[in-house]
Amino acid sequence: MLQGKATWTFKNPPVIVSTGTVGGPFEEQGNIADDFDLFFSDQWMEEKSFEQAHSHLIEEASTIALKKANVSKDKVNFFLHGDLINQITPTNFAARELKIPYLGLFSACATSMEGLAISSLFVSEGNADYALTGAASHNSAAERQFRYPTEYGSQKPDTSQWTVTGAGMALVAKDGEGPRVTSATIGKVIDEGMTDPFNMGGAMAPAAFDTITQHFNDRNVDETYYDLIITGDLAKYGRLICLDLFSKNQRPIDESKFKDCGLMVYKDDQSVFAGASGPACSAIVTYGHLLKKLMKNEYQRILVVATGALLSPLTVQQKQSIPCIAHAVSIENLS
Amino acid sequence: MLQGKATWTFKNPPVIVSTGTVGGPFEEQGNIADDFDLFFSDQWMEEKSFEQAHSHLIEEASTIALKKANVSKDKVNFFLHGDLINQITPTNFAARELKIPYLGLFSACATSMEGLAISSLFVSEGNADYALTGAASHNSAAERQFRYPTEYGSQKPDTSQWTVTGAGMALVAKDGEGPRVTSATIGKVIDEGMTDPFNMGGAMAPAAFDTITQHFNDRNVDETYYDLIITGDLAKYGRLICLDLFSKNQRPIDESKFKDCGLMVYKDDQSVFAGASGPACSAIVTYGHLLKKLMKNEYQRILVVATGALLSPLTVQQKQSIPCIAHAVSIENLS
Repeated sequence: MLQGKATWTFKNPPVIVSTGTVGGPFEEQGNIADDFDLFFSDQWMEEKSFEQAHSHLIEEASTIALKKANVSKDKVNFFLHGDLINQITPTNFAARELKIPYLGLFSACATSMEGLAISSLFVSEGNADYALTGAASHNSAAERQFRYPTEYGSQKPDTSQWTVTGAGMALVAKDGEGPRVTSATIGKVIDEGMTDPFNMGGAMAPAAFDTITQHFNDRNVDETYYDLIITGDLAKYGRLICLDLFSKNQRPIDESKFKDCGLMVYKDDQSVFAGASGPACSAIVTYGHLLKKLMKNEYQRILVVATGALLSPLTVQQKQSIPCIAHAVSIENLS
Repeated sequence: MLQGKATWTFKNPPVIVSTGTVGGPFEEQGNIADDFDLFFSDQWMEEKSFEQAHSHLIEEASTIALKKANVSKDKVNFFLHGDLINQITPTNFAARELKIPYLGLFSACATSMEGLAISSLFVSEGNADYALTGAASHNSAAERQFRYPTEYGSQKPDTSQWTVTGAGMALVAKDGEGPRVTSATIGKVIDEGMTDPFNMGGAMAPAAFDTITQHFNDRNVDETYYDLIITGDLAKYGRLICLDLFSKNQRPIDESKFKDCGLMVYKDDQSVFAGASGPACSAIVTYGHLLKKLMKNEYQRILVVATGALLSPLTVQQKQSIPCIAHAVSIENLS
């Protein structure tokens, strides 16, 4: 049901019946390693290119999610997924192996929640029995596409972020055991004129603020409704800017319940500059770490706000500013 | 409602209340020029780059569709759109100007029907009052990204296709005057191992065959149900291969009602090799030419099967085959 301008509330909140989360060797050394299902020991994943390794991540996360739920591929109606690589080819090739009807998505690092929002709508109203959805990224594939090949050793500023190598997948169904998706707010593009591609957290903060505010207004709730409001990958500086925006707009948010996926993946002694990023970032934190906390009743209601910087190397070369977006999905334990 | 494996049939079929179609100078010389709303006199559209011109096309098509329906932007809940450019940045920048909650899509030249399918589902069940959806491409932006800059004058084989410069947009609503969207079938990725990026029609033909067959099976209809079955951009050779596949599988389709958008945009004396392509191809033919024919009662029931080649320059360099997809949407006059 449409509630307000841009929010769906689900009369029959669908269940996340299982998840699959995979990562690379650097993620295995990280902060939430216990919450992953599988790690690969190098960036190649026994493939010939980083991009094919990227596909492999998506296939593995899918296989794990399906296996855990004991649901075969042919029972799944739709696969909704995206990544950062040009023409989202890693996703396309994974979809070829999955053989599930496929809807390609792109909203950069906000893709995870774009997919969960749409999947939940499908399932909630009987338009899918099962939908498989997620997002993925691969550090080496992203580095050479967006910046420079890692071998060049180019220097980065402190505001830059580290693209997660991984894939996070959720299997959404009408019934079953697990936390339920209760609502979703689709964001609009916000562009405050920032042009520095090495400060995407800062660029995305106003989009997160806009979507969370829209969500509160549409659902007629405030921050007290949630145990946790977690942004996608604003990282160190973006999170502070976002908190600032809430304060300045007379809607202060309790800092202790306002977290960021980009600050949770790696340990403090891993050199990731301002924090983690990439479509996999919010996907693996949500479908690995946060789902487990919901299932252990450490949280009852969370709002995941995946954030995306919708730029490209070409738009940076053409000196355009960075359009940003955020999509918010609420996940709750319902009795 | 889910019908069969991968098809939605809409209990409350949404209406395409208005459309907007824009093109460039080459399209103005074409075969269906009378069906466009607006042409630009050059490839630059008064912008500084082809990519910004590409955004301009999307914004203009949106403005026209909204104006025709007398619906303001703030009444539209969702904008669902995509294009071929890396990270779909022309769409992202257009979404910034539109300020409508935005879901980015990518299925290459099948994007038009991915968007119409999802938009129709949203509207049909009350999850959107209005959804604006479409697809766009820009010949010069696509050429320099996927092939070589036009100025190089590189030679092409007869099986290659010509990327349409244009944008086609539809405004989907619950009620109103106009043809209605009655069902949609989401395709899965089909890859028959073809590797020639200059024969994408041939590569995509099996995907079109697969989706149309799935559609017939799911809805329990055959070709006689439709006045017209029209593929996205198989062009001259792909269309013949697709017809062949139907014959060989004992489901022959009457050639006279099996058309292709890629064969309708340009005149015979325009040098476009095997025909037109690009996400705009099926979008402008459907929302310009075909909608008018439905409204004039020349057709009552059509099935639009947009086809997409999900490759990239990188996957071609890495010697991968071409994964392809097709999404089918039925549009009908209901009394």
